[in-house]
Amino acid sequence: MSKKLKIGLFGFGCVGQGLYHVLNNSTGFKADIAKIAVKNKTKPRIVGKELITYDKWEILNNPEIDVVVELIDDAEEAFHIVSEALKKGKHVVTANKKLLATHLEELYRLQQENNVSLLYEASACGSIPIIRSLEEYFDNEELEKVSGIFNGTTNYILTKTIAEKLSYANALKQAQDKGFAESDPTNDVEGFDAKFKAVIIALHAFGLIIKQEEVLNIGITTLHENDIKYASEKGYKIKLTPIIQRLDDDKVSVFVAPRFIKEHNHLYNVDNEFNGVIVEGKFSGEQFLQGRGAGSYPTGAAVLSDISALSHGYKYEFKKYAQKHAPTFTNDVVIEAYFRYNNNDDLKQIIFDEISEKYTSKDYHYVVGKVNLTHLIANRDYILKNNLFISLVDEKVSLAKEESKKTVFKKELVSY
Amino acid sequence: MSKKLKIGLFGFGCVGQGLYHVLNNSTGFKADIAKIAVKNKTKPRIVGKELITYDKWEILNNPEIDVVVELIDDAEEAFHIVSEALKKGKHVVTANKKLLATHLEELYRLQQENNVSLLYEASACGSIPIIRSLEEYFDNEELEKVSGIFNGTTNYILTKTIAEKLSYANALKQAQDKGFAESDPTNDVEGFDAKFKAVIIALHAFGLIIKQEEVLNIGITTLHENDIKYASEKGYKIKLTPIIQRLDDDKVSVFVAPRFIKEHNHLYNVDNEFNGVIVEGKFSGEQFLQGRGAGSYPTGAAVLSDISALSHGYKYEFKKYAQKHAPTFTNDVVIEAYFRYNNNDDLKQIIFDEISEKYTSKDYHYVVGKVNLTHLIANRDYILKNNLFISLVDEKVSLAKEESKKTVFKKELVSY
Repeated sequence: MSKKLKIGLFGFGCVGQGLYHVLNNSTGFKADIAKIAVKNKTKPRIVGKELITYDKWEILNNPEIDVVVELIDDAEEAFHIVSEALKKGKHVVTANKKLLATHLEELYRLQQENNVSLLYEASACGSIPIIRSLEEYFDNEELEKVSGIFNGTTNYILTKTIAEKLSYANALKQAQDKGFAESDPTNDVEGFDAKFKAVIIALHAFGLIIKQEEVLNIGITTLHENDIKYASEKGYKIKLTPIIQRLDDDKVSVFVAPRFIKEHNHLYNVDNEFNGVIVEGKFSGEQFLQGRGAGSYPTGAAVLSDISALSHGYKYEFKKYAQKHAPTFTNDVVIEAYFRYNNNDDLKQIIFDEISEKYTSKDYHYVVGKVNLTHLIANRDYILKNNLFISLVDEKVSLAKEESKKTVFKKELVSY
Repeated sequence: MSKKLKIGLFGFGCVGQGLYHVLNNSTGFKADIAKIAVKNKTKPRIVGKELITYDKWEILNNPEIDVVVELIDDAEEAFHIVSEALKKGKHVVTANKKLLATHLEELYRLQQENNVSLLYEASACGSIPIIRSLEEYFDNEELEKVSGIFNGTTNYILTKTIAEKLSYANALKQAQDKGFAESDPTNDVEGFDAKFKAVIIALHAFGLIIKQEEVLNIGITTLHENDIKYASEKGYKIKLTPIIQRLDDDKVSVFVAPRFIKEHNHLYNVDNEFNGVIVEGKFSGEQFLQGRGAGSYPTGAAVLSDISALSHGYKYEFKKYAQKHAPTFTNDVVIEAYFRYNNNDDLKQIIFDEISEKYTSKDYHYVVGKVNLTHLIANRDYILKNNLFISLVDEKVSLAKEESKKTVFKKELVSY
């Protein structure tokens, strides 16, 4: 029933070698890696020279290769390779979330037009089968929300700051020493990686194609020991959590920000490099999935699972997108957050309403209150540049107009 | 791409009505329920009379009905209905774990011979997509272990005994009042339900068809307040956990027993009626899935997910079973357990080795040590009849011959 596939592999770093190992140690399934395209000509390789090529066309133009597995770093070069492969009628497996989140609509179109399959389970949350579960299990159910911890690097850093009272800088260094964080950790610590995954998941969970540039990602680079102390004293952990939330009027909000997590939340115990995803369905209730978010073998296993699915003719059906009554994306929502600032200018710049807590001392000031997401998007650079820190205190997201109605109503009450 | 299905439904109780509700409230997917076969002629129904029939043949002999959804209680009558439906070329969706666990081999054969699809995601762990994940995601990976909490009723009872210090009897009564436990709770509290699910999961995780009669299930009916106190003092919770464990020599052990769970285990926070499953893969590491284990809508949603899969031509491939190098089932293993007994006769009857703890007082005696599973199987009735309680203190399962080697080695050491 299944077909033996000939694979052309792009990239032979951590995940590529993981795939090679997993493939050679899996029983009952054999796909041949016909060729591996790499860039660096001097690096020693664990496979024979005859497998290696430095010319991408040697794979793309080879009619015997039916599957391209793309595992390189460079998202733009990856887009070029993946588009060419799809146009030439080859199926593609990729783990590249930046590629996907940046070119989601074009890639969707290309795989439809060329009637080939593009699979990318390894792109979101490592070894957790989240895309497959959304595609195949939650495909007919209206979902309320998908949230979780999608990035292992930041979760490792945040775990260490809380559990071992490490400073952000020390925790980052430890993550780099352990190989969890890259030498340039921007993508992870500024929340880009988690955002890319949220954008991919929003397509399969809500049928939504969003431009990743329009999605807010606030990261953890400005985390200060005062923030850690605040969270610890209240018994919270700090996690970087993407939230994809259905709202009234067929609207969906998507963003990534740090969040204080209470003990009874599923995510409270998702520590170190692990990822966790909570899927809330209208009927099935709350589902929680946890697994290793990164690593050579777990990601390799996820890639292999896609290759295996290809050998059985599998293709995402994008059922929620195809249904054509997908909701629309909005940033015009209000969230409740903790905001550590430096001086009153900051408070004038970043405007919080309904302030429920305010603390000032010589060198530590914060408020807890409500803020509009569009306002945070407009001021993202200001927050980063001035080392301010924002963390959700509540996971509730409300449409701004609901909030303004509430305010008007309040004012009326006051005027009587 | 997808086909509109005509459904013949058997049973219109809790899950049947849940399915009806979920089906009528799902966007973008319509399958028609053409007929509902029920037994009780006097019970009022929430659907029009024209949909109801009391004659199973009105569904089974109707060539327009392409899917039978079987949701009745009686496993033997269900087997008759499902077999007939498969033989008549109809696809079948069922949530009946007893039916499946008791007739797994015949049902596997029938759906192969008649080239139809038999799906049963709702049979194991409610709304957790465990079978689909094993079939489609872990299909090529060698798994080390699958364990978890598969039964919501016992988990509800056990949660209440620990959290609210209720006695077993009171907790059971509360579960019955809340509708989680049936008036005859034997299947749940004696661990049969969890065992049926373990048997189904063993097929998809390890390619193993086991006779459910050969699998040990020790339940929680003999739980005493002393056992609860012992666990609480040590900071453990007690959970009823099926364990499906790969061992050396291509052997797999399967059994269900109470277990003391420490705080850092994933299952520690799976409380009340929730279920949790831990899948340990050779490469993907530990995956954890949690969701609602029971209930009308979650189970209805799981059934609907199978119906939707059918509309896209989905069929389990039983890849691990088909690979033909499935491991073999064994009960000749040693586990480490806590054993509360009444008198020395009990200790002579149930033989524990390598006793690491022993406690006796006027009315409470226990040992902690090692015991062979075959020995517990032979003495299951004795344990139940004499109100003795057994709980795993460790989740490690070892082949008996490994243990005996160890003992010999130890003796040699001693003799020098």
